[in-house]
Amino acid sequence: MRRFIVVGHRAPTNSDFTLDDLAGGAGRLDVLLRCVTAAFVLSHAIRRDTELLLFLQGPPGPARALRFSGEELRYLNPDERSTGALVRHALLQPPGPERRSTPGIYVADLDRRACYARAAQQGPLIYLKEGAPDLRLASIAAEPNFVLGDDQDLTPEEEAELSAFAPTLLSVGPRSLHTDQCITLVHNELDRREAASRLHS
Amino acid sequence: MRRFIVVGHRAPTNSDFTLDDLAGGAGRLDVLLRCVTAAFVLSHAIRRDTELLLFLQGPPGPARALRFSGEELRYLNPDERSTGALVRHALLQPPGPERRSTPGIYVADLDRRACYARAAQQGPLIYLKEGAPDLRLASIAAEPNFVLGDDQDLTPEEEAELSAFAPTLLSVGPRSLHTDQCITLVHNELDRREAASRLHS
Repeated sequence: MRRFIVVGHRAPTNSDFTLDDLAGGAGRLDVLLRCVTAAFVLSHAIRRDTELLLFLQGPPGPARALRFSGEELRYLNPDERSTGALVRHALLQPPGPERRSTPGIYVADLDRRACYARAAQQGPLIYLKEGAPDLRLASIAAEPNFVLGDDQDLTPEEEAELSAFAPTLLSVGPRSLHTDQCITLVHNELDRREAASRLHS
Repeated sequence: MRRFIVVGHRAPTNSDFTLDDLAGGAGRLDVLLRCVTAAFVLSHAIRRDTELLLFLQGPPGPARALRFSGEELRYLNPDERSTGALVRHALLQPPGPERRSTPGIYVADLDRRACYARAAQQGPLIYLKEGAPDLRLASIAAEPNFVLGDDQDLTPEEEAELSAFAPTLLSVGPRSLHTDQCITLVHNELDRREAASRLHS
């Protein structure tokens, strides 16, 4: 299982946004929707071995977490608008503990620290940050959890919170990219390693 | 300069489509719009050293070519809908030889063979195809031109036409990906090579 955890700094926590203005009025929700596509969409297939957590920090708040489980996902198309409709539907759910919105999409009150703690129990936390050592040269243990910002880097407070879990810092290349592009690059590197290990086993 | 050439098999050649249904009624124009984003969008910047050609083969036809020049591009946002609006505006232009629609976006009657011929004069043609040798291991000359299908592979007729220009066949990895994901992976590989060559010069 590969897990991606994306911190959406201004992403809406309720469904009061229009699908016609995802990049403007909806707190750069467009960035997070492209992350869903990059995390799950293959040509004519879905990556079943992947989970994605999106932290929506509002406004209006309180913050919420969306969890996408590749194993169960249905009704996912690659375009931003239809994924935006799935997210809006999830945000119609009342606040509280995790509940399912549509197959493979869950929403819960945000407990970011608990999410990190649960992820860290399953595999290493890897914080993708510009200028860090190269992903291609790094050893990556099974069940990795990649943490990324949206169009904004993690704040110093968010970095401090994450650093309590002793993440490894890695980067995907020399240019400053969008979050979904980073997810595509991580998947490709892991796909290559899996294919190579199948060849040698 | 890096050039990407994408063959849109059912992409509309006129502006009679709605931005609300880019993945459905608009001949999978959504696939091509994501290619625009992958080709040009960096975090808070545009790739100026890139050109993208989209072949729109209709319906209704006749076929047209859209050319995006990173050097001149303006008004490009990363979301599908706003890029769809730029493309729709370009398709409002009357048929004929190449004319500018908005800064950095040009539209022309399609002459695919002439596009290939012009590209081949500037650098090698590289056809990205599943199962071909690995991009990471390949020598890539300056001014490369990468040719890709949309959500459909090139047809045998399209491959035959392209093969007249003796393209090199390469692939980006072991999984079957979307076209925009392939563009992201090519950019990353070339970014890395450029950074390494700067380090050693």
